[in-house]
Amino acid sequence: MGCPGEQAEAAADVLITADLRGIDSHGVARLSGYVHLWESGRVKVDPDLRVIHETPSTAAVDGDGGLGLVVAPAAMKMAIEKAEKSGTGWVAVKNSNHFGIAGYYAMMALENDMVGISMTNASALVAPTFSVERMLGTNPIAVAVPAGRQPPFVADFATTPAAYGKVEIQMRKGEDIPLGWIQDVDGNPTSDAFAAKKGGAMLPLGSDREHGSHKGYCLGAIVDIFSAVFSGANYGPWVPPFLSYLPPADDAVGEGVGHFFGAIRIDAFRPADAFKLHMDQWIERFRKTKPVAGQERVLIPGDPERELHRARIEQGIPLLDAVVADLRSVGEKFNIEF
Amino acid sequence: MGCPGEQAEAAADVLITADLRGIDSHGVARLSGYVHLWESGRVKVDPDLRVIHETPSTAAVDGDGGLGLVVAPAAMKMAIEKAEKSGTGWVAVKNSNHFGIAGYYAMMALENDMVGISMTNASALVAPTFSVERMLGTNPIAVAVPAGRQPPFVADFATTPAAYGKVEIQMRKGEDIPLGWIQDVDGNPTSDAFAAKKGGAMLPLGSDREHGSHKGYCLGAIVDIFSAVFSGANYGPWVPPFLSYLPPADDAVGEGVGHFFGAIRIDAFRPADAFKLHMDQWIERFRKTKPVAGQERVLIPGDPERELHRARIEQGIPLLDAVVADLRSVGEKFNIEF
Repeated sequence: MGCPGEQAEAAADVLITADLRGIDSHGVARLSGYVHLWESGRVKVDPDLRVIHETPSTAAVDGDGGLGLVVAPAAMKMAIEKAEKSGTGWVAVKNSNHFGIAGYYAMMALENDMVGISMTNASALVAPTFSVERMLGTNPIAVAVPAGRQPPFVADFATTPAAYGKVEIQMRKGEDIPLGWIQDVDGNPTSDAFAAKKGGAMLPLGSDREHGSHKGYCLGAIVDIFSAVFSGANYGPWVPPFLSYLPPADDAVGEGVGHFFGAIRIDAFRPADAFKLHMDQWIERFRKTKPVAGQERVLIPGDPERELHRARIEQGIPLLDAVVADLRSVGEKFNIEF
Repeated sequence: MGCPGEQAEAAADVLITADLRGIDSHGVARLSGYVHLWESGRVKVDPDLRVIHETPSTAAVDGDGGLGLVVAPAAMKMAIEKAEKSGTGWVAVKNSNHFGIAGYYAMMALENDMVGISMTNASALVAPTFSVERMLGTNPIAVAVPAGRQPPFVADFATTPAAYGKVEIQMRKGEDIPLGWIQDVDGNPTSDAFAAKKGGAMLPLGSDREHGSHKGYCLGAIVDIFSAVFSGANYGPWVPPFLSYLPPADDAVGEGVGHFFGAIRIDAFRPADAFKLHMDQWIERFRKTKPVAGQERVLIPGDPERELHRARIEQGIPLLDAVVADLRSVGEKFNIEF
């Protein structure tokens, strides 16, 4: 595609890390989608990132239409550099594209003894509480916190009850989904996995008003505002879709997709050793929490992905036949041997 | 109590603002609780706040055992001052107490053309996903974002499906609660409003694993870590209780309750006018979202509280008889005419 080697490697690392951590929906299965975006002229392979505004602890960056997988690592690096000098660093990005797993960028902070934060908006799929319109993406938030002898705390979650990938699995199986994930075109609860394809919408975390869906709506809205209103990207229903055959809105309110990154030096608040000692104690106490009958243990955010990572590094990454075929066809397109 | 006039006024303003905004559970109804904390020697009326560590964009503050209602406004002011110089300001606080409504402090940023963030940990009431132990407080998060011609966006929510105040209302009425708010002592779903009093626990936002309670658990954990591990306060099950007759843990891991505040200058990312123009457009578009049948409109976070505020400023704040009696007895204690 003409992507410079260093950038291609950075992007590949994001995708493969997703697969290693078991987030298959955001791994190499998406490669052909990124290629299609490039083919439709919606991604620049050699973007010229520019800082358009900055202060000692902040920067707004124009991603120049680059791949999110390339723009995001560069922006998170800037946040880390700002944090080194000012205690914290915060970078808002416009004019980017789908960036893969949010957790990757938050985790970049860990090796610098920093807490990392990462979020992105995405094309609208979620209806605010009491509405029938898709207005927000599944807008994920990731927060990574370093510890000492314990592995880090890594939260990485969409602001919906379940990821859309889980709905897709049920569609493939022809099975129902639990009530509380999706509403139909009229805003009624439904267990039809295909409801979102028939004009329905995903629900915010909390599922319904009685169970706090207005809080999930708040979270998705905060991610949208931080990612796009700080940076000048598109927000709400204007965020361009990942699927290249769906046209972007013709009345864009900003440029491309927006992201928001943060890096916080732990020794900006107290000596790093003291922070890590208490973080270890936090993790160890929560690990010892008494589980409900039938469950072996209580998890620390990041545990499941770390365990999958360990297993997959040893045993390899299992790929669905459809994904293999997809990768094969990308390879053929570019004369790369498989 | 010996609280200096300026501090007493600051604290009163937080409580009355809660009542005006309709968050009655955190308003003057709590005054006697704060007095009891002072009577039991757990609150200092004239705390000497100290910055114990800082960088250009951060500070860790020792609240010296002061009332949260006094410590928190001072800490948020520091965050705002840091933001003026460095673009953003972040203040972690230890050795504090219950601070009332989180939204109050986030909203302090608005008049400075800043986004405000506020969070606090609280004594354990919530069980992590798959557990039967109370490990986290209802740990609220507030985010306030200024707009231009539109009123600000103000999100202020506990990281649980419903506030504990709503459970208390059902207990008083002798009525059931919806499934998904509380689990019983064995971790089973229950509609018994008294279950939490019988060894049960509140559930994280999402209610159960299938509906994303692990995400609510992540959110509560992030608030706990930001409030207490950054600052050196107590975390998890060690956070001291608000109720003065419940003793604090005798194996404290830190000092007092912890809070975390943030202030972000909107012109740290782009000119303030551009930010406000797009925030107006965000709000106006979301306000026009098509509602489900039976609902008049889709709300913007902060709408309900602002409407109550407008009504109560005109018509006064309705108080329950029990609250009036409580205030009367506080008045008698200090020879203040009612």
